[in-house]
Amino acid sequence: MTRDNAPTGLFTRSAQVDVWQVNAVKPVSYEIRMCEDAFDPADEALLEPASVTGGDRRRFVVIDAHVERLHGERIRAYLDHHRVDYRMHVVEVDETLKELATLEDIVRALDAFSIDRRREPLIAIGGGVLMDIVGLVASLYRRGTPVVRVPTTLIGLVDAGVGVKTGVNFNGHKNRLGTYFPASLTLLDRSFLATVDRRHISNGLAEVLKMALIKDARLFDLLESHGPALIENRLQGSRWGTGRAACEVVQRAIHGMLEELQPNLWETQLERVVDYGHTFSPTIEMHALPALLHGEAVCVDMALTTVMAARRGMVSAADRDRILAVMDALELPTWNDLLEPGLLARALADTVRHRDGRQRLPLPVGIGDAAFVNDVTPAELAAAIDDLRTLGTAGRRGAVLEEAA
Amino acid sequence: MTRDNAPTGLFTRSAQVDVWQVNAVKPVSYEIRMCEDAFDPADEALLEPASVTGGDRRRFVVIDAHVERLHGERIRAYLDHHRVDYRMHVVEVDETLKELATLEDIVRALDAFSIDRRREPLIAIGGGVLMDIVGLVASLYRRGTPVVRVPTTLIGLVDAGVGVKTGVNFNGHKNRLGTYFPASLTLLDRSFLATVDRRHISNGLAEVLKMALIKDARLFDLLESHGPALIENRLQGSRWGTGRAACEVVQRAIHGMLEELQPNLWETQLERVVDYGHTFSPTIEMHALPALLHGEAVCVDMALTTVMAARRGMVSAADRDRILAVMDALELPTWNDLLEPGLLARALADTVRHRDGRQRLPLPVGIGDAAFVNDVTPAELAAAIDDLRTLGTAGRRGAVLEEAA
Repeated sequence: MTRDNAPTGLFTRSAQVDVWQVNAVKPVSYEIRMCEDAFDPADEALLEPASVTGGDRRRFVVIDAHVERLHGERIRAYLDHHRVDYRMHVVEVDETLKELATLEDIVRALDAFSIDRRREPLIAIGGGVLMDIVGLVASLYRRGTPVVRVPTTLIGLVDAGVGVKTGVNFNGHKNRLGTYFPASLTLLDRSFLATVDRRHISNGLAEVLKMALIKDARLFDLLESHGPALIENRLQGSRWGTGRAACEVVQRAIHGMLEELQPNLWETQLERVVDYGHTFSPTIEMHALPALLHGEAVCVDMALTTVMAARRGMVSAADRDRILAVMDALELPTWNDLLEPGLLARALADTVRHRDGRQRLPLPVGIGDAAFVNDVTPAELAAAIDDLRTLGTAGRRGAVLEEAA
Repeated sequence: MTRDNAPTGLFTRSAQVDVWQVNAVKPVSYEIRMCEDAFDPADEALLEPASVTGGDRRRFVVIDAHVERLHGERIRAYLDHHRVDYRMHVVEVDETLKELATLEDIVRALDAFSIDRRREPLIAIGGGVLMDIVGLVASLYRRGTPVVRVPTTLIGLVDAGVGVKTGVNFNGHKNRLGTYFPASLTLLDRSFLATVDRRHISNGLAEVLKMALIKDARLFDLLESHGPALIENRLQGSRWGTGRAACEVVQRAIHGMLEELQPNLWETQLERVVDYGHTFSPTIEMHALPALLHGEAVCVDMALTTVMAARRGMVSAADRDRILAVMDALELPTWNDLLEPGLLARALADTVRHRDGRQRLPLPVGIGDAAFVNDVTPAELAAAIDDLRTLGTAGRRGAVLEEAA
């Protein structure tokens, strides 16, 4: 649970002029827990905290429509079993509906049901987009009500469900409005992936690949060796059997993400390696809407910036080609026709605003490390686009085909 | 400035099951500064922080339309003098426009101007409603951009401009969506009050009276002795001359508010004496919209709860009458026809949700102290309404008239 009742400093008032300095400290603590089956009636984790009054618990559940069709019956049975007084609010969400209007619909339904402000957490069940919207609802409703998250997609498990960022798109800009608001508890249940389609598995693997490229060579090796099988098997299986690679991949991705997030939860430090793939992609994703999923747009960005890094000698040609080949193997796009210097320059300009006046652009160094650059020019962007176009058509794909032959 | 770069804890991962506990600490520090003239060209406080690049500073200024008409020219001259590249976004605001649509308009204009995320604070100039909306914009825009506030009304100076709460009304509920987000700097300039109308001075004095009743008997004495003069003079004058009482009133109100807020900035503790007058008033205010200003609704709530406290023997009949007489003298309403048991019961039910399942209703104890009760019944509400109606018409006003005769 988010705690903010720790000792706080005092405020000081100057005797000379009327100046008050208010100092306080907000301790934040949140938990992420892997589980085998979030809706096993024997497991009460989803319903934490237990009712303090001894009466029935009340919960407002926001669930993705697709997930509700697949799992709604089981979830209702679970809630009924625990005598929960609940409202299940079913929402259609995708990136095009990640907007204030969807948030407003949820808040109206929440008002109609009505919950106690601090002890009756919202429950969010769905993919990354739903996590982000419901997280924002939770952070804004009565200035903050707790939320328990159950991500049901891979990108939800390794990305949206791990961090503290919430948001909606606004005015054509990705996540233009949002907050940092940790869910009190997030339950990661890999079994949901069994019913996720290939494309959405790949979508999540893009964020896993990001972690691999910037800080975890072992994770890259796993993706290179097992990528197609991971997609085929939907990362299922136990850690002692067929799911060994899947478990390690998910575990390393989450652990690496938390290592980066935890010391920089509010992004005080704007040079973030986890921003890799997120320099040009917000603009690409919003322009391509709804053609590209988030991870797909991130992968296009990573393909481009891998080529940029190779041009700078930060990544060898061999590693560059390995990286692009893994993107192919993960069924992720490495090219999009939106890649043209004008749009990328505008994307970079907006990212520079976001990074407070500097590019702070993370680029891979070899495989498994990263460095920041601040001197990318329009000419370099144009050259990288040309390189990627060549590699993506004749060059690289040709080489890959030759190898396969 | 809000700082969040202090040392943070480590996250722990259990070896047995995959559980990650993320711990972090967000230190918050913000400043409130009285000043004689926020737009004196010699004073650069408004433009903190200074430009780090040495180039022109860029600022997005949101200003109340009424304030712009009165002070716009001087403010533009100030910004021009300091070679600030600015956009002045003029908004009509009142409680009926304290809604998401107004926030969206501001964000669109902000996007069109575009600012660096952390080093180019928004500037908010206006009353309490504007403070709350722009505060919410600042907390949401790119997940948080700093804001400097210049409140121009009394309620802005002693209430909205002192705390960290932001918000908009939604779905018929007062401040249903909001955040806790401290402005990096707030400049309190009493000279703005010279052009505020009597009603809005009284509106602010309601929140001052609240502080007096719950914790500051000396402040009550000041209001009792100088109330009409404070309104007449718009709290102007220097602390060594005619403004001595005005200065002490403002200073005590702010200091008392900060004493209560600082140890409980995120409302971890839901028993808050500063919630006095805010149990029934959110519902009354929203139902009366636009008839009652915020402070007026708060005063109606305080009149009712003063009578409740008197009925319980917590406030003597003499003190009750003194309190109601001061409300009269401050030109604040002590009655509204919305006061009927059904509406108040619904108001209390919503407040109980807000206070996490208990009434936690602050009531005055004498003058200058408070206690919390949790056992208010519909019958008590009905009786208090009847008492107040009697006092408000025949009883008290009669007594006051007799005294005056």
